[in-house]
Amino acid sequence: MTYELRAESPQAARTFARDLVVEQTVEVPDGCYSEEIERTVVSRIEALDSADAGRYRLVVSASPDLVGGQIGQLLNILFGNISLFGGVRLVAVEWPAAILEALPGPTHGIPGLRRRCAAPSRPLLCTAIKPVGKSSAQLAADCAAFARGGADLIKDDHSLTEQATAPFAERVARCQEAVEEANAATGGNSWYLPNLPGEPRRLEERLDLLARVGCRGVMVSPLLFGLEATADLARRRELAILGHPTFSGALFGEDHGIAREVLFGEIYRLLGCDGVIYVNVGGRFGWSLEECQAVNRALRARLDDILPAFPAPAGGVQADEVGRHLERYGADTMILIGGSLYQQGDLERATAELLENLEAVSA
Amino acid sequence: MTYELRAESPQAARTFARDLVVEQTVEVPDGCYSEEIERTVVSRIEALDSADAGRYRLVVSASPDLVGGQIGQLLNILFGNISLFGGVRLVAVEWPAAILEALPGPTHGIPGLRRRCAAPSRPLLCTAIKPVGKSSAQLAADCAAFARGGADLIKDDHSLTEQATAPFAERVARCQEAVEEANAATGGNSWYLPNLPGEPRRLEERLDLLARVGCRGVMVSPLLFGLEATADLARRRELAILGHPTFSGALFGEDHGIAREVLFGEIYRLLGCDGVIYVNVGGRFGWSLEECQAVNRALRARLDDILPAFPAPAGGVQADEVGRHLERYGADTMILIGGSLYQQGDLERATAELLENLEAVSA
Repeated sequence: MTYELRAESPQAARTFARDLVVEQTVEVPDGCYSEEIERTVVSRIEALDSADAGRYRLVVSASPDLVGGQIGQLLNILFGNISLFGGVRLVAVEWPAAILEALPGPTHGIPGLRRRCAAPSRPLLCTAIKPVGKSSAQLAADCAAFARGGADLIKDDHSLTEQATAPFAERVARCQEAVEEANAATGGNSWYLPNLPGEPRRLEERLDLLARVGCRGVMVSPLLFGLEATADLARRRELAILGHPTFSGALFGEDHGIAREVLFGEIYRLLGCDGVIYVNVGGRFGWSLEECQAVNRALRARLDDILPAFPAPAGGVQADEVGRHLERYGADTMILIGGSLYQQGDLERATAELLENLEAVSA
Repeated sequence: MTYELRAESPQAARTFARDLVVEQTVEVPDGCYSEEIERTVVSRIEALDSADAGRYRLVVSASPDLVGGQIGQLLNILFGNISLFGGVRLVAVEWPAAILEALPGPTHGIPGLRRRCAAPSRPLLCTAIKPVGKSSAQLAADCAAFARGGADLIKDDHSLTEQATAPFAERVARCQEAVEEANAATGGNSWYLPNLPGEPRRLEERLDLLARVGCRGVMVSPLLFGLEATADLARRRELAILGHPTFSGALFGEDHGIAREVLFGEIYRLLGCDGVIYVNVGGRFGWSLEECQAVNRALRARLDDILPAFPAPAGGVQADEVGRHLERYGADTMILIGGSLYQQGDLERATAELLENLEAVSA
């Protein structure tokens, strides 16, 4: 993998690089372990080059044997204890085949979601029901309107969990039913993706409910739901998974953290997300177009036999910008739009117009 | 809760504050929800004051009803989507009773660990077996030496998971046996805490193993093991839990993230950690004494009927500094020391001397 280090001199960068490979593996001073462990366990420094002023580019090889298929240990190596150093940023990973084989990757990916949505070439349209505080009946009515308008996917807001106003079991049953009724009326293919809360002790009960009511996908927030739990869910090969970026923001420091395209474009994808929600340029979070494009490229890139996943740039996407959105991001994109449809009042009509517009600009 | 915001003007700070309370709750533009939701769901801005140049202090009340006992949703509100804004730092939380009641907190805490270690007043001594790459037999031998030397707790390095050199089941059985044999020989009370890997699908099998071999505690890395999974484990009220800080480092930005004392001193404790490992001043990670003290104060502070948890400042603690360590941190501290004992070669003797020294300075 490749890190950017901040260091005051080439000598300091060399010391930093050695500290880093020790910290991500043996975590013990030189001399406390055998030659064999030095050779087989401590990551190897492949290159250390000066980049911009005060920045160095470090290329490191770690042994895949240290990881197995364990996501916790993978993150320990990529950005575990070394996250506690200042000034180190993980900017690229060359994934060894052994790691890729051990991770689930998307179950449906771009081709599978396209098939299920009967949308072979245009961007998918995903809407969000919100806000928390509405009743299950109100949220189900919103679902119905989005579905009648032709949205491909209709997801819960990530704040919707077990609030008394719309507890999970009630909300899921009502929203799923509303979407199915709308599909039956219009001949459409909309599907509803509830936000799956994270308590492991309630997971089986919730998955049973989803199977019972016919839900085929969920949204999870991997950093809070659990990275291992996300991968375990994907390994069941039952549900489509949309990954939400909540709690990730501190990782994107200029000098410290993980590059967006590594976290969202590679790690989320390898954990099994079929679609990855992240932050749209020009929205309310201030990411640059290049940062978004890097995530998109990674999600769609060839990576052994891991399926590509849909990028879903989100946050302040405006319904009337859909042409620009397509131009920027290309057709293999999930357009995620919520507030802008709610602002128009009539959800069904706003969704239908958006879809029409999307089909026109995609033609 | 209290945030520090970075903003260019009082007006910009006011806009930021409003954006923040909307983002952590309804996530939808003004006018898209009812008066009732504005009143009951959107967090209330209690105060917004100018602090240092370009910084503002924002006090916000969120509704506990939005959280229930859900840790994912708790983090969504504290630092979820708002983490994707720049320049916002969560610096304090006033925990509502409803939230405290819904979270597990430590099972043993400081008093329980002291009882089990038969160490009523001095700092506890925790050592770590390392590095990854050693065989289970070698690691068990290290355990035996640490136990004969009188270490209270002996933990796995957090990199030890399922590597072929020392797979979990084999390592745990051998290390536990080694510690029990040493205890039997010396009349000691050492206990072994394996690093519990995170795959949910293997959790029950691993917990069964721990129960079978008689392990009474584990180490977990909450941010990778899963925050909800950590709390669920604590809710079983079986094992003592030592929390490891891996992957947390990006959260501690100067202008962005979560204050150390909130994450380690409150969140880790509320999730159920009986001891919390974090970064020692003067070690290899560069934290200040004040930052460490703030974590310690929070872990020991009165918080309803939640037990206090042991701070375990770690990383480059030197065996001959134990007096200074005690002076700095006080007796209700877990001294976590690994590399410095390994550097001395004879683990049993180094541990015994350290313990003797610790008892002398604590007397």
